[in-house]
Amino acid sequence: MKVLVLNCGSSSVKYQLFDMRDESVLAKGLVERIGMSDAILTHRPTGKEKIRSVQPILEHTTAIKVVVNALMHHEHGVIKDIAEIDAIGHRVVHGGEKFTQSAIVDNSVKEAIEEYFDLAPLHNPAHLKGILAAEDAIPGAPQVVVFDTSFHSTIPKYAYLYGLPYTLYQKYRIRRYGFHGTSHKYVSHRAAELLGRPYDDVKIITCHLGNGASIAAIDHGKCVDTSMGFTPLEGLIMGTRCGDIDPAIIPFIMAKEEISLVELDSMLNKHSGILGVTGLSSDMRDLEDATEKGDERAKLAMEMYTYRIRKYIGAYAAAMNGVDAIVFTAGIGERGPMQREMICPHLSYLGVEFDPVANDFKGEERDITKPTSKVKVFVIPTDEELVIARDTMELTSRA
Amino acid sequence: MKVLVLNCGSSSVKYQLFDMRDESVLAKGLVERIGMSDAILTHRPTGKEKIRSVQPILEHTTAIKVVVNALMHHEHGVIKDIAEIDAIGHRVVHGGEKFTQSAIVDNSVKEAIEEYFDLAPLHNPAHLKGILAAEDAIPGAPQVVVFDTSFHSTIPKYAYLYGLPYTLYQKYRIRRYGFHGTSHKYVSHRAAELLGRPYDDVKIITCHLGNGASIAAIDHGKCVDTSMGFTPLEGLIMGTRCGDIDPAIIPFIMAKEEISLVELDSMLNKHSGILGVTGLSSDMRDLEDATEKGDERAKLAMEMYTYRIRKYIGAYAAAMNGVDAIVFTAGIGERGPMQREMICPHLSYLGVEFDPVANDFKGEERDITKPTSKVKVFVIPTDEELVIARDTMELTSRA
Repeated sequence: MKVLVLNCGSSSVKYQLFDMRDESVLAKGLVERIGMSDAILTHRPTGKEKIRSVQPILEHTTAIKVVVNALMHHEHGVIKDIAEIDAIGHRVVHGGEKFTQSAIVDNSVKEAIEEYFDLAPLHNPAHLKGILAAEDAIPGAPQVVVFDTSFHSTIPKYAYLYGLPYTLYQKYRIRRYGFHGTSHKYVSHRAAELLGRPYDDVKIITCHLGNGASIAAIDHGKCVDTSMGFTPLEGLIMGTRCGDIDPAIIPFIMAKEEISLVELDSMLNKHSGILGVTGLSSDMRDLEDATEKGDERAKLAMEMYTYRIRKYIGAYAAAMNGVDAIVFTAGIGERGPMQREMICPHLSYLGVEFDPVANDFKGEERDITKPTSKVKVFVIPTDEELVIARDTMELTSRA
Repeated sequence: MKVLVLNCGSSSVKYQLFDMRDESVLAKGLVERIGMSDAILTHRPTGKEKIRSVQPILEHTTAIKVVVNALMHHEHGVIKDIAEIDAIGHRVVHGGEKFTQSAIVDNSVKEAIEEYFDLAPLHNPAHLKGILAAEDAIPGAPQVVVFDTSFHSTIPKYAYLYGLPYTLYQKYRIRRYGFHGTSHKYVSHRAAELLGRPYDDVKIITCHLGNGASIAAIDHGKCVDTSMGFTPLEGLIMGTRCGDIDPAIIPFIMAKEEISLVELDSMLNKHSGILGVTGLSSDMRDLEDATEKGDERAKLAMEMYTYRIRKYIGAYAAAMNGVDAIVFTAGIGERGPMQREMICPHLSYLGVEFDPVANDFKGEERDITKPTSKVKVFVIPTDEELVIARDTMELTSRA
C-alpha cells in the first residue's frame, strides 16, 4: 500500500509518498509560492537526484497535479500510475472538540473543518482547499485527516479551561486545544519503547522545540496538559511568538501605541519571541553564533528560552506527580545540544543525571542521561508524516 | 517607639498602630467609602470594645484625622497625644525598577511614586494621596514607604523579561515586577526559622492565596521568580482575575464581542477567575459550600484553582532545582484545608509527605507534613503590616 501524505498551507503543499510495506519514503517534496507565476517545485525521490522547477501554479489543484506528475516522472518518478496512490493523508491543524482521533474525509468532516476556520484562520482554510484539490487531482483515492489537536483531547476539563467567564467557553469554545499532537504522540510512544515499559504505565514529558514549540504531559498513556492553548501563541517563547505574557500587557500596549487588533496579532505572532528579544533573528542557529561571539541580548534570549522550558517541565512533573522520561524533539530539540545542556542539569532534583558527553551530538536518537539516571532524557527525531501515513493506512484498510 | 501603618486605597484607609517595643498592635481599623457622606470608620483598639461610626468623609486628609481622633479617643483610644505617633509606614504597590527596598519619603520618592501611576493606575495615585494626607494630618512624623514590588527586585533578567519586542521594555518598562512582596518576604523568613536553617541557605516556595494570589520562589535568600507579572492579573486564577491565558484570546474576544479596552480590562480583572467560572461568587467559602452540595461548576473552579497552584509550585521547584519548604499564607492559604489537601498529596514526587490530620485546621502556624517529610509544608499566617512597621522603625531610627 502506498500513502501520499499532504500538508497544505495557504501557498504551499508539502508531500511525502510512503510505501507502507516497510514504511519507507519513496519521495518527498514541496510546492511553494502557489498563486504566483513563478511557483517552485522541489522534488526529492529517494535514491535519485532531486529536481527543482519553476512554473506558474495558480491554485492547489494544479499544485497537486504537479506533484503527481513529479511522482510519475519517467526519470525522477517513483510510481508508474496515479492508481498506485492508494490513499491520501492530510495534516489538519484544528479539529476543535469534535475530533478526538483521525477521520476518513466525507462531507461532514469537510463541514467540521470549515466550522473551525475561526479557530485556525491561517491553517484550516488551506487544509480544506488541499482536500478538495486532492479530490480533483487524484480522483478515487480515499482521504484521511489527522488533526494536530486530537492527541490532546484527553486533557481534563480543569486543565483545558481558562479562568475566564464560562460563557466564553459556551459561546465560542474558548479553551486550551493544544497543537503538535502528532509529534507528541509519536515521540511519547517511542519513549515508552525505549523505557521498555507499557505506554499506559509511564509518565512522559515531551518537548517539541521547532520554530513553533510546545510541551506536553502524557500520564499513563493520556495527554493531560500542553503548553499551547486556544491558539499556538501560548506557552513557550518561540522563534517569533511571545508565548506566555501578562494578559494586561495587551490593553496597555494597545492604548500606548494606538495599534489595531491586526497589528497586535502581527506583533505577538511575528515580531516577538527570539526575534523580538534579540532584534537579530528568529533562527536559533544565528542565536548560538551570536551567543558564542558574546552578544548579550542573544545570550539573554537563550536563557529566557531555556528557562521557560525548564519551568514547563517542572509544572508538568507536578501535574503528574513525577515523571519517568523527558523527550526532546523537532529542530532545536534534536539539534540543540547547547539548549539541552542549559535545561537538563537543573533537573537533578527530579532524578535526572545528565550526561554531557552523550548530549554532545545532533539529530539522532539518544539517551542523554547516565545509566543510573532515575529519570531518562531522550532525544528522539520526530516523524509526523509517518504517523499520518499510519493513521491513513489503518483507517482506509478498516473501511 | 510607636509606628502607624497605613494602607491607602482610592476610597479607603486601613491602619494599624504598633508599639515596637514588643511589636504589639495597639489598635487597628478601617475607613471605608471615603468621598461619601456616609463614610464608615471601624476602630478596634486591642483589649477594648470596637467602635463603628458613620459620617461624611470627603477626602483622605479628613479620613486620617478621623483615624487619629479614634486613636486618641478618651474611651476607645490607645494614645494620649498625636506626638506619640513616632513614624508612619505606608504600603505602596508599585516601586517600579527604582525601589529595591523601602525608603523614607522625600520629594524624589513622591515623584517616583507618581512616575509609576501608569504601572499601577488603581493603587499608586491613592497611595500618594495617602502620603500627602498623612503629612497634613500628622505633621512632623517621618514617613516610610514599603513597596509590594521591591522584594522581587532580585529576580534575574531572564525571568522578568517577556518574549516581546525588546523596545517595549526600553520604552515602557514592560517586564515582570511581582506583587505581595511584603508577605512573601515575611513568610519565607519565618519558614527558614521553622526549618532551623539560615535564610540564605534554603529554597522556599511561598503561596500567598488571598483574593489576589501569587506564588514566589526564594532561592538562597533571593526571590528568583513570582507569578504576578507586569500587573497583578498574571499567574494564578484568583477571585475575579483570570490569571494566565493564551494572549491570543484577547484580540479574539475583542473582535467577537466588540468590546472596548476598558470593558476588556473590567472583564479580565473583575468578572473572571472563580467568579467567572462559577457565575456564583468570588468568595472561596461560597465555593466550598457549593462544592459540598454537589455543584459541578464550583467543583470545577476549585480543581482549576488548585491545579494552577500545583503547576506553579512545580515550575518553581524546577527554577531552583529543588525546594526545601513550601508555605501557604493569606486568607485561603491559612484557612483553606480543602485547597491544601487538593494540592499537597500531588507533590510526593518532590519529597512532600502530607499529613491530612495536621492539615485539618484553620488560621494558625503549622507544619502540615509528617516528621519524616524531606520537603516541609508550612501554614504561616502572614503579617504585612508588621513588616511595614519594622522597616519604618529601622529606616527612621537610622536617619
